Amino acid sequence: MNLHIFLAGEIHSDWRTELKEKAAHLPITFTSPMENHERSDQIGEEILGKQADSIQKDEAASRINNLRTSLLLKKADLVISLFGESYKQWNTAMDASAAIEMGKPLILIRPRELHHPLKELSSKASVTVETVSQAIQILSYIYDKE
Amino acid sequence: MNLHIFLAGEIHSDWRTELKEKAAHLPITFTSPMENHERSDQIGEEILGKQADSIQKDEAASRINNLRTSLLLKKADLVISLFGESYKQWNTAMDASAAIEMGKPLILIRPRELHHPLKELSSKASVTVETVSQAIQILSYIYDKE
Amino acid sequence: MNLHIFLAGEIHSDWRTELKEKAAHLPITFTSPMENHERSDQIGEEILGKQADSIQKDEAASRINNLRTSLLLKKADLVISLFGESYKQWNTAMDASAAIEMGKPLILIRPRELHHPLKELSSKASVTVETVSQAIQILSYIYDKE
Amino acid sequence: MNLHIFLAGEIHSDWRTELKEKAAHLPITFTSPMENHERSDQIGEEILGKQADSIQKDEAASRINNLRTSLLLKKADLVISLFGESYKQWNTAMDASAAIEMGKPLILIRPRELHHPLKELSSKASVTVETVSQAIQILSYIYDKE
Amino acid sequence: MNLHIFLAGEIHSDWRTELKEKAAHLPITFTSPMENHERSDQIGEEILGKQADSIQKDEAASRINNLRTSLLLKKADLVISLFGESYKQWNTAMDASAAIEMGKPLILIRPRELHHPLKELSSKASVTVETVSQAIQILSYIYDKE
Amino acid sequence: MNLHIFLAGEIHSDWRTELKEKAAHLPITFTSPMENHERSDQIGEEILGKQADSIQKDEAASRINNLRTSLLLKKADLVISLFGESYKQWNTAMDASAAIEMGKPLILIRPRELHHPLKELSSKASVTVETVSQAIQILSYIYDKE
Amino acid sequence: MNLHIFLAGEIHSDWRTELKEKAAHLPITFTSPMENHERSDQIGEEILGKQADSIQKDEAASRINNLRTSLLLKKADLVISLFGESYKQWNTAMDASAAIEMGKPLILIRPRELHHPLKELSSKASVTVETVSQAIQILSYIYDKE
Amino acid sequence: MNLHIFLAGEIHSDWRTELKEKAAHLPITFTSPMENHERSDQIGEEILGKQADSIQKDEAASRINNLRTSLLLKKADLVISLFGESYKQWNTAMDASAAIEMGKPLILIRPRELHHPLKELSSKASVTVETVSQAIQILSYIYDKE
Repeated sequence: MNLHIFLAGEIHSDWRTELKEKAAHLPITFTSPMENHERSDQIGEEILGKQADSIQKDEAASRINNLRTSLLLKKADLVISLFGESYKQWNTAMDASAAIEMGKPLILIRPRELHHPLKELSSKASVTVETVSQAIQILSYIYDKE
Repeated sequence: MNLHIFLAGEIHSDWRTELKEKAAHLPITFTSPMENHERSDQIGEEILGKQADSIQKDEAASRINNLRTSLLLKKADLVISLFGESYKQWNTAMDASAAIEMGKPLILIRPRELHHPLKELSSKASVTVETVSQAIQILSYIYDKE
Repeated sequence: MNLHIFLAGEIHSDWRTELKEKAAHLPITFTSPMENHERSDQIGEEILGKQADSIQKDEAASRINNLRTSLLLKKADLVISLFGESYKQWNTAMDASAAIEMGKPLILIRPRELHHPLKELSSKASVTVETVSQAIQILSYIYDKE
Repeated sequence: MNLHIFLAGEIHSDWRTELKEKAAHLPITFTSPMENHERSDQIGEEILGKQADSIQKDEAASRINNLRTSLLLKKADLVISLFGESYKQWNTAMDASAAIEMGKPLILIRPRELHHPLKELSSKASVTVETVSQAIQILSYIYDKE
Repeated sequence: MNLHIFLAGEIHSDWRTELKEKAAHLPITFTSPMENHERSDQIGEEILGKQADSIQKDEAASRINNLRTSLLLKKADLVISLFGESYKQWNTAMDASAAIEMGKPLILIRPRELHHPLKELSSKASVTVETVSQAIQILSYIYDKE
Repeated sequence: MNLHIFLAGEIHSDWRTELKEKAAHLPITFTSPMENHERSDQIGEEILGKQADSIQKDEAASRINNLRTSLLLKKADLVISLFGESYKQWNTAMDASAAIEMGKPLILIRPRELHHPLKELSSKASVTVETVSQAIQILSYIYDKE
Repeated sequence: MNLHIFLAGEIHSDWRTELKEKAAHLPITFTSPMENHERSDQIGEEILGKQADSIQKDEAASRINNLRTSLLLKKADLVISLFGESYKQWNTAMDASAAIEMGKPLILIRPRELHHPLKELSSKASVTVETVSQAIQILSYIYDKE
Repeated sequence: MNLHIFLAGEIHSDWRTELKEKAAHLPITFTSPMENHERSDQIGEEILGKQADSIQKDEAASRINNLRTSLLLKKADLVISLFGESYKQWNTAMDASAAIEMGKPLILIRPRELHHPLKELSSKASVTVETVSQAIQILSYIYDKE
């Protein structure tokens, strides 16, 4: 049984690389948002040309990034969403909530320090863990027979 | 035509009072999350008794607050979501995203300063404005015939 | 049995007035897009202020007009959509198609001259007629017992 | 990750050929409406025989063309819709709107000259661009990792 | 608690009158297809004028009758469908199946003699009974507290 | 804001009476399965007559009781489900799970002694409590403004 | 592009063999109800043993046949439904209507003689034809590029 | 035609082994909950570490087991659910009901002794049988052509 898992969330650290390496023994296709932060912010102007101001530039980039995320979320069997200790990451919360509302199982990874501001999202997630390794253990458990 | 509007978002300022007063001439029922922040944090222990630790206390409160929000979101015809300049407000992003995914029209109110971190959510919202008065103008426009 | 009917389509003629008068004996609430064409084009700048260029002005107006239409379509039990002989009216086709996809019954009113360019939409509509009076006859028939 | 993309819209120019050539390096299956305009208009009589009049002929053709489009739209992961400067193209608007309502990401290609009549559809599309090359850049970006 | 019940099925006998009289003590709104069989067959030409042949006449009538049924089915909380011993009544089977697929509870009334040809539909119905009185008993039971 | 709440679960004790009395100050309509256990078991034969054996008798009763529950669940804004310490109550688990799958908020009431066998259902419920009074506190909290 | 097509309808003639032979050049998987009529009527007793009476025997068979049809309909991209001149075929109408309600394109094959009793179903079908060859032409047209 | 079947229910006996052996000739992928009962109860602490008390331990395990079941149910074409004579098995009833509500065909296997407490679930299942062999016969019948 092949699974498609979308890795939402923080794009400033290399957690996706760690996760994919640790899950290399499982028949899983991983997809993710554009991980090059700079490019993800510039993609609107890269494709559509110079925009009038920073709000238009952000709107152009957001439409393209939202198209990508929306397409991949829809194809995913499960979503993993990681919050780091910096940044506001409202789009991570937005993607996680969209996944829940679509009925996709969601694994939330967040440091214990963030438990209070993330309490509502954590409660709606399928499972909340603190490390990438714990998320991998859940993925393995899905395939384990005993 | 009566409308039910859910006022998601920041509970530390009195924007809901201002909005309801300015919309008093329209046949709209407004609902909202528990606006007493202290009580919303304590509601788990208020109903279920002392919990083992702060994470359990938060989980108990979150389940009850999520039940309330989920019930009211489902009954709403439109959702207005306000982000203030402080706090992480991931649950506001979560509620706004759930509304979008349910197909509810969403008006996002946020100060111009937050345009960058909220760009993806703003792009998916029906309309983004900067003030409560602008949101009221949209509500009036729904009822205007010319 | 009360019905809510949304009157999509052309806003340059007074067909809605004619239709509402002829249906005055039926317990129906009619809603519609903003019928003041000038205001509907200006509403973005009316609420959000001067925009950078005509495309931004149109985008601002469209978001607000789409919010209105989307809210009303969702509340409607039936949609009537009229195409006139002038204008491109792609938003009329868009609203009619959205109604069909939502499973709302759709009455399409169009002059016989437009049968060829509207053939696909006509085929997907519940019923296609040529005059407002024919549409009213269908509404009466819904209430008739024999 | 293979994608299925439906190419809605104008069938009088060869934009689909250009697009498929430029996207040949991506693992994408493209489908489209019948591109032979003459045959698409005649298909009702080709299969069902001579019809009573031109409206019946159009209805017969539309049912068969709508069946094709409906089947392919449902299987598509993403829809690209191109409006040219001629023709009314209400069925293009209808297909684009159906795609949006089904929750499929939509890329709208239209010349800048059409921005005003297409403003509502453009606002609901995932992204609006002006050239086939820009649409291809978005498709590439979905697959890019950095 | 008010209920809306749609009475699908045979329009050649007066079972609806009997049913409404026997249910007069319950807070139920009953709707039904056009019960005047002759008018229901003529409604296409009544509204749209003389059609080219009997198939076009039937198509015109069917579109209008299907619009009526579709609108009322969607508003109904429960559907009752009666099959008599004569006529093919494929549209009754069609409406009953549509109700099941929409998740509406369905009470099927049919004479014991028809059990074999109706076995698949009977198995998918919520309950199958043989008389109008038995259907009324079920409606009463919904309101009974003990 | 009026709410419709369905009271699923055990019909051998008088918990519904207690709950309704304690919630008498709230604008809530409560519905429930047939609370007369004997009648609920006999309803198949009461309406359809003597059945061939006990399995047929149970099937006849179940179809009618399921129709009632299905109709009321669909109309409900929220479901409360109580498990007592006796009986297998698989239909209570079935109704609670159906409510969850329909996206209805669910309050689960169960004695602490049952926590282990009900752990999966408890985890999927919106909130799990141990007493009717706690459930009432949640209902009040939905209406509280501060 | 592979398609899965379910062949609903009459099981007393060999139209499915004819259709599969004529469509052998297309990449289509065809499924169908049990075509051995005798076995389809006996399947309840074949698996569950002797039943109490003919109604129970029919109910047992119907549950198993409905499970098969429901599973296959859900997997199908398109449904073809054939009505012959004999038999009541209410289950054919039921399956066709279920397919329409699920949003599956439906090709209806029926002799011209049946146009009047099938007029409502014909109007809701995607296309109605009179012969198996015409249905094949539609299938080919889906694959044709020009 | 490949099928994915989820085997819900009792994990204290080896019925799944028997079923898979008997179905080895059919192109079916079977999945199931964790069949090692001990591990399924410990999985929360295995992954998340020591929990505060037995309720927290159960909650942690349930979230992980529910994630697994929810993911597999969603991918399944058909669900088979077996109730044994011991244990409360409320989660089996919960999974079976979720499958029904998702529109998945459900085969219920239960000993005749359990017919009364399972009567409502049995009535909503697609088919109820008493042995694993009977379930296999139904699976074979789906593939049989005559």
